[in-house]
Amino acid sequence: MLTLYYAPHTCALATHIALEEAGAAYSTKRIDFSKNQQRSPEYLEINPKGRVPALATDRGILTETPAMLVYVAQSFPKPGLAPMDDAFALAEVQAFNSYLCSTVHVAHAHRMRGYRWVDADDKPSLAAMQRKVPASVGAAFELIERDFLKGPWVMGERYTICDAYLFTLAQWLEGDGVDLGKLPRVMDHRRRVGERTATKKAIAQELT
Amino acid sequence: MLTLYYAPHTCALATHIALEEAGAAYSTKRIDFSKNQQRSPEYLEINPKGRVPALATDRGILTETPAMLVYVAQSFPKPGLAPMDDAFALAEVQAFNSYLCSTVHVAHAHRMRGYRWVDADDKPSLAAMQRKVPASVGAAFELIERDFLKGPWVMGERYTICDAYLFTLAQWLEGDGVDLGKLPRVMDHRRRVGERTATKKAIAQELT
Repeated sequence: MLTLYYAPHTCALATHIALEEAGAAYSTKRIDFSKNQQRSPEYLEINPKGRVPALATDRGILTETPAMLVYVAQSFPKPGLAPMDDAFALAEVQAFNSYLCSTVHVAHAHRMRGYRWVDADDKPSLAAMQRKVPASVGAAFELIERDFLKGPWVMGERYTICDAYLFTLAQWLEGDGVDLGKLPRVMDHRRRVGERTATKKAIAQELT
Repeated sequence: MLTLYYAPHTCALATHIALEEAGAAYSTKRIDFSKNQQRSPEYLEINPKGRVPALATDRGILTETPAMLVYVAQSFPKPGLAPMDDAFALAEVQAFNSYLCSTVHVAHAHRMRGYRWVDADDKPSLAAMQRKVPASVGAAFELIERDFLKGPWVMGERYTICDAYLFTLAQWLEGDGVDLGKLPRVMDHRRRVGERTATKKAIAQELT
């Protein structure tokens, strides 16, 4: 049995959607950021990084969205959420997810979590980081719009774990102040993923 | 036939080492950062992100180190560089690599490439980012030291792609001003990976 540790409005939603798409049996545990629960001794036992998501499995804890997404796809192969037996196609999936994780999510994080990279009391630098977010997140999404999103799904004809992940990070575009007018294909993709049953179920579960 | 686009002293070394460990047939092309070749129209055709590494394959270009490493492991299965058929074990490998990519490498990048996240002419903020690097990179490596590096190799008894990647990022510790005294296991790991034939060959090839 799998347990997903999550907080609403975080990248945990990607794995949550993938679990729904996979038809997996799982439960969820909400980590309350307003109480700083992610830094509690109990949660640090589960994930010493003090972040969500984490996925408890029978064999131990997994972290990091790109790893968890492939884990879900490989553990529940029937819906074909990742091309596990095709090294090149899998690498394309992974390259996309890695870009979301290490470039898009990181650019976004400079809006609210700049203290990771400058002193927490350095207000001018934190503000400088925030000012850059519309441009840095925007540039990354323009690359996705132009070069990476094959259409109709990220990898082409087949829905994969990339779609759940892109949808999740695209939730943050308005908050990041990105010019949505430059991203018609990304926005259309976001709408279509949002209409899927699995997506609706995962979101409803996180917000109730 | 594979072609690795690289620059010396970058994370491209991880894939380079993995190709050597795998016994792959490959060639290399050096991208000259001093001439800003990574932003040249020719290279942007190969990798629109304007970064190294990239790996040209018969089916197209791959980017992003975690993706390329699994691609090498899956394409050349004989040395067992990743547990491709064990979803949990593969996810552990991937979680480790994803942490290196999105936390360790990102923390490091704030020393030399802070302009990604603040305006390029904002000298005080760039300097503030640089000041934080010893602490942010150091904290990430202390987590690796304490919790993630199983020993003798990252994943335990078996050498995997994680070892090539950790070794590569550990090259930057001195430059990042990290207190090496807190990382005896990481430093011992770095020494042992550095003694392997594949590592020596990859480094020699990059530096000649």
